[in-house]
Amino acid sequence: MASDFFKRFSALSSEERLEFYRFLRNEFDADAEPTEPVRRQDGERAGRAANARRPDALGQRATLFSLLNYAPGGVQQLVDMRADLLAHAKHDRSLEALADDLRQLFEHWFNPGFLTFQRIDWSSPADLLEFLINYEAVHPVDGWSDLRRRLSTPDRRCYAYFHPAMPGNPLIFIEVALTKGLATSIDRLLAESGIAPETADTAIFYSISNCQTGLRGIGFGQHLIQLAIRAISEELPNITTCATLSPIPGFKHWLNALSDEEKAELTGSDTDLLGVLKAGDWVGDHGLANRLADLLCPLAQRYLLDTKTSDGRPVDPVARFHLGNGATFGQLNWLANPSARGMAESAGLMVNYIYIAPRRADVQPSAPKRGKISPWRTMSGLLAGQDNRSRMETDV
Amino acid sequence: MASDFFKRFSALSSEERLEFYRFLRNEFDADAEPTEPVRRQDGERAGRAANARRPDALGQRATLFSLLNYAPGGVQQLVDMRADLLAHAKHDRSLEALADDLRQLFEHWFNPGFLTFQRIDWSSPADLLEFLINYEAVHPVDGWSDLRRRLSTPDRRCYAYFHPAMPGNPLIFIEVALTKGLATSIDRLLAESGIAPETADTAIFYSISNCQTGLRGIGFGQHLIQLAIRAISEELPNITTCATLSPIPGFKHWLNALSDEEKAELTGSDTDLLGVLKAGDWVGDHGLANRLADLLCPLAQRYLLDTKTSDGRPVDPVARFHLGNGATFGQLNWLANPSARGMAESAGLMVNYIYIAPRRADVQPSAPKRGKISPWRTMSGLLAGQDNRSRMETDV
Amino acid sequence: MASDFFKRFSALSSEERLEFYRFLRNEFDADAEPTEPVRRQDGERAGRAANARRPDALGQRATLFSLLNYAPGGVQQLVDMRADLLAHAKHDRSLEALADDLRQLFEHWFNPGFLTFQRIDWSSPADLLEFLINYEAVHPVDGWSDLRRRLSTPDRRCYAYFHPAMPGNPLIFIEVALTKGLATSIDRLLAESGIAPETADTAIFYSISNCQTGLRGIGFGQHLIQLAIRAISEELPNITTCATLSPIPGFKHWLNALSDEEKAELTGSDTDLLGVLKAGDWVGDHGLANRLADLLCPLAQRYLLDTKTSDGRPVDPVARFHLGNGATFGQLNWLANPSARGMAESAGLMVNYIYIAPRRADVQPSAPKRGKISPWRTMSGLLAGQDNRSRMETDV
Amino acid sequence: MASDFFKRFSALSSEERLEFYRFLRNEFDADAEPTEPVRRQDGERAGRAANARRPDALGQRATLFSLLNYAPGGVQQLVDMRADLLAHAKHDRSLEALADDLRQLFEHWFNPGFLTFQRIDWSSPADLLEFLINYEAVHPVDGWSDLRRRLSTPDRRCYAYFHPAMPGNPLIFIEVALTKGLATSIDRLLAESGIAPETADTAIFYSISNCQTGLRGIGFGQHLIQLAIRAISEELPNITTCATLSPIPGFKHWLNALSDEEKAELTGSDTDLLGVLKAGDWVGDHGLANRLADLLCPLAQRYLLDTKTSDGRPVDPVARFHLGNGATFGQLNWLANPSARGMAESAGLMVNYIYIAPRRADVQPSAPKRGKISPWRTMSGLLAGQDNRSRMETDV
Repeated sequence: MASDFFKRFSALSSEERLEFYRFLRNEFDADAEPTEPVRRQDGERAGRAANARRPDALGQRATLFSLLNYAPGGVQQLVDMRADLLAHAKHDRSLEALADDLRQLFEHWFNPGFLTFQRIDWSSPADLLEFLINYEAVHPVDGWSDLRRRLSTPDRRCYAYFHPAMPGNPLIFIEVALTKGLATSIDRLLAESGIAPETADTAIFYSISNCQTGLRGIGFGQHLIQLAIRAISEELPNITTCATLSPIPGFKHWLNALSDEEKAELTGSDTDLLGVLKAGDWVGDHGLANRLADLLCPLAQRYLLDTKTSDGRPVDPVARFHLGNGATFGQLNWLANPSARGMAESAGLMVNYIYIAPRRADVQPSAPKRGKISPWRTMSGLLAGQDNRSRMETDV
Repeated sequence: MASDFFKRFSALSSEERLEFYRFLRNEFDADAEPTEPVRRQDGERAGRAANARRPDALGQRATLFSLLNYAPGGVQQLVDMRADLLAHAKHDRSLEALADDLRQLFEHWFNPGFLTFQRIDWSSPADLLEFLINYEAVHPVDGWSDLRRRLSTPDRRCYAYFHPAMPGNPLIFIEVALTKGLATSIDRLLAESGIAPETADTAIFYSISNCQTGLRGIGFGQHLIQLAIRAISEELPNITTCATLSPIPGFKHWLNALSDEEKAELTGSDTDLLGVLKAGDWVGDHGLANRLADLLCPLAQRYLLDTKTSDGRPVDPVARFHLGNGATFGQLNWLANPSARGMAESAGLMVNYIYIAPRRADVQPSAPKRGKISPWRTMSGLLAGQDNRSRMETDV
Repeated sequence: MASDFFKRFSALSSEERLEFYRFLRNEFDADAEPTEPVRRQDGERAGRAANARRPDALGQRATLFSLLNYAPGGVQQLVDMRADLLAHAKHDRSLEALADDLRQLFEHWFNPGFLTFQRIDWSSPADLLEFLINYEAVHPVDGWSDLRRRLSTPDRRCYAYFHPAMPGNPLIFIEVALTKGLATSIDRLLAESGIAPETADTAIFYSISNCQTGLRGIGFGQHLIQLAIRAISEELPNITTCATLSPIPGFKHWLNALSDEEKAELTGSDTDLLGVLKAGDWVGDHGLANRLADLLCPLAQRYLLDTKTSDGRPVDPVARFHLGNGATFGQLNWLANPSARGMAESAGLMVNYIYIAPRRADVQPSAPKRGKISPWRTMSGLLAGQDNRSRMETDV
Repeated sequence: MASDFFKRFSALSSEERLEFYRFLRNEFDADAEPTEPVRRQDGERAGRAANARRPDALGQRATLFSLLNYAPGGVQQLVDMRADLLAHAKHDRSLEALADDLRQLFEHWFNPGFLTFQRIDWSSPADLLEFLINYEAVHPVDGWSDLRRRLSTPDRRCYAYFHPAMPGNPLIFIEVALTKGLATSIDRLLAESGIAPETADTAIFYSISNCQTGLRGIGFGQHLIQLAIRAISEELPNITTCATLSPIPGFKHWLNALSDEEKAELTGSDTDLLGVLKAGDWVGDHGLANRLADLLCPLAQRYLLDTKTSDGRPVDPVARFHLGNGATFGQLNWLANPSARGMAESAGLMVNYIYIAPRRADVQPSAPKRGKISPWRTMSGLLAGQDNRSRMETDV
């Protein structure tokens, strides 16, 4: 029956799909249980009494989506349906409720414990590699030879998360370059380096990209980074630093949106330099560029670290993701991304967020005292960690 | 952190685990969200407003369990924890609430769309086959040579469900014998038959057993049967009937629990025959056995089909499972299971529930009219089907 | 020790390798057994007495090569060594003896019974697909998008042979296009056709290419074709014709090498047309082209079918391969390959060799009478077939 | 055609097979080439001229067997055919020539470079494990629970060789127990030890068994031991000694076959003790047993080390195998195998052959000077090693 549904659904036009979504929205209750969906032993029933105030798991719509998952390939089709819903919801916000029903299911289904972490390299299937070409959103892949360089050069790594019911379709992937010291320029990073992996000391995560629009807001980016760090550490003990080379997508937009007073306050006497920045013809002028660097770097740091949303998190989405995941602010890199997009977004500035830094010799790490921490304590710790968890809302 | 937890947890004694469960029960709220666990785009937030009355997905405890799943092997350890909780809950029913938190997660995680269906045979790994020996609960396996006969004889099939995060540990398995006509005796069925698969016309599902106590109440038994039927149909088009040879575990208990008036009403003048049944020395007496058959078969049919729970479902758990899954009552088989357990539970009676019967030539199947049924209609149909779904609460 | 050898060998320069080959050539005897290499039971020794005139299996050099195979990756390195030997042997023909020692071993090692036949498609590993781009010798692959079209279009198939000790390195591959009727133009064949596989009636084998120079002269091309025919027949019962669209590489060379008398005899009065052919400016002149077609097609047929080597086989290497493998001559296709190479080799002519033709309704196939043919008869048949077997000496 | 042959061949009775073998023996020439089987490029032909005295590779019969290998499963069927031939050859020694034709092919086909080395454990397929139960020839496996102990106890290892064309059918397997110090009793070794692998210092190879009678005389036993030693060394660096606990199958037979003078010479005045040994009632008599030990141990050492065949190798087949493979004589163990067979063959004596012994601290190992050894030298070394290679003619 679920297979039948998808066969018919896939034949619908965009308008018919919209009509169908509205039908779902109106006819099925998100709250009420369809009927008591699960009959339990008497024992469990009593247990549930203690739970009584909370309605049982799923509403009618979520139950329906759960049943559709029984179809072969069902989960991919539901992920695609949510992508479609999110697109339609831009025009009809009432459909967001349906996208949210699916999001709740996906939070369960795409629990990182169920995902498989795999290295991707030049011996991976060509149709899988095509995903990388199509979905690399941060630093676009320029055809197969560019991809080959990113995958088969000894100083590159690429890792991805897969769901067992969507084999061959990566959920998200991360690209890594091995370097000596922090990378300060994306162009030099993407060029061939010839560094032997065992002589590198740093792993630069230079791109994380989602492959499934329908999984927007489901958070597995941070786990992918953790597993990538572990994979690299196990393979290459010589790597002591793990960091990003990240864009600052909202910097110039924030700068332009400042009021005149704020600008004056932040820049001191140099407000006219901002006009130069806008005009954009400063790159070739060494002196001007240096003055701009002196002006903009402190501003960017202020933007990244001190400018917060109403709930106290960084305004910049990439900063929000990495700092929320436990990374620290490393350094700003002037003219690190001279591409049109890089200049437009952040005047060419990029930032290294640091995940793992070499331990300084003079700092005595406090012993972890593992034996004394009880499972009791762990539970509270886990829940506290969950509060800080940051979702990836953009490719980073 | 999740891995740490399990390392510590596994070192706890049974009493310490009980203490830990009570801590969880008392300190973490099943209802309140820990904090807003997921930050969504503004768009989705508006959508959620429409959902407002329903609290978001998970309470604190379920969130904790979700996070524990991140550990390698986490899902198996949580399944084992629920088994432990169900055992402890026999003495402290307040713990049923925790078992129920896990059940709700498991309903999502063990959605049949995520399970893999595999045939098990004599080329399967020995440690996997050991599960079958240990968990076959309906007709115990008598060592490796018995298992070999059940797996490598051409007229036998065995299928199981696996979860991708628990490879090698079957969740549930079903054993099938190919026969000519309905099987009427479990002993003859288990003996070697020498039937060539392509000459059989019937597939008898003679045992379904759960391997994971911690998944009690999670319903995938019916799906396993559906997939087994499909696998057999594809492999052997000559099979036209799919049926069970099932025990009637509650029959004698029900009979004994009847009041004297009910007994009199049901048995007519033959209430003394029930005394004979109790005494149990009638098997060798052909005449007596025949009289008992005449008395008990109608009673068993009445028990299976007309005796219902308060919510209108069959009292017998095996009948409840199969009839709830869409099977129909086939026939009763006298002295079909003369083992001690069979005699004690049901006076040796067994029943065939029919899943697929040969289509009679004179019945014109109405054309499915697929083109006309819209996705709209399918949705309602799915939800209606869900109401009738029957959970497997015992091995059947 | 064998691993050590290859480590040292790979560090040698081309000259040092040559010196090494000569050392091998001079110091190790191809004939004498090193010592009695294999001690057998007495029983077998007596058996060998009957065999006495034939020296035992291997000479010293072949024994050495056998021992080198023990190294991990040894077989690939020996195949590469033979490729190197064949190159050196162009200048020092005495090295052909060493290449021949290896050939004898490879005849055993690459027995088709040990090769695995696999379909290659767009989900194959990228590094494997790169072999196809690099080794397609008949109709070169123009980058990844051309390859994608040859592999992922529904009307294309590609199959390859692999050796288990050289996984990921194809030995030979064959490319197939599904068509309606015989293909008569390579350009139309390589362009996208949009034919649904289940509506095609013909499979055109348009290219067979070797990937391992070191395996030159080892015959598995014919077996690859047989397995490809079987794979297509099983997948698509609608395919009734299997044929090639093959080049005629030696045609113009043969034509030019004819004596004036032969030319006069073969062309009648039209010897001047051959001058036109040589001048090459006839393609645009419709009338001239037609006259050339009338002249050349009979000549090409005569070349392919009647012009034989001293041992009675076709002079044209592609004809020799396909006709020796049991294919029959189908039809000549005028201007089928207008590429520079096609024009230079065969004036654009191509030929279909037919492997499987639709069975005509009026021909009653004689019953195979399988029961009556004894294993005795099969043995002689096998040996007879072996005589006719044709080695692939060029990509076809 | 090759498949056809095996279908017909498998239907033959033993007598018909014998008749068929004689037909092969008489009608096909082992020496003459069928015709020139391989046409080479001219280049190679010249090379072969230098080779002229040696007939090309295969005779007619071997060519036939090569062609039969093309059938799916052909190699297993040819191996089985050789097993059958060896059995028939006991009565008709002229058939040994055919078995030898196959042996020559098998020497190529089962070159260790093509075999896959795998650990076997309790997660291996049950039908593969059944081979171990059926073919363990040295210390028979007493059912599944005995096998489970040999495979799943942490201090046991089992490794096997497979051929890629015979997956699931092991060729040969070796059983290993991890111990502290040399094992001196097979009963204690086979009992459960409870030794943690990381605390052991010795790996005892206590059984090597062939699974394919048809591969008798093909030598891969020594390679299996080398790979097993490497696998154990990589997994457990704490293992410093690798040795066997081996039977002395020919000892008592040799002793009994001595002439009276030899006996007198070897035993001094104790010839009557040999009578006691024969009578066999000495085990319970401590004094007598001690006297026998004093008598027999030097005799056994003499038998193992000094008693040679006409070609200078040890008479005892197990000693011949291990000493020929580079092991050294370790120590004799009195009453190490008190089983009936052990007593009958060797008065209960067993021997440790040492493959790897702990390096003594006072011995300065000479540096390997790898850079200076040329590929030239390696070649001669390989060939010399080949001379010493010992075939496994019995399970050891």
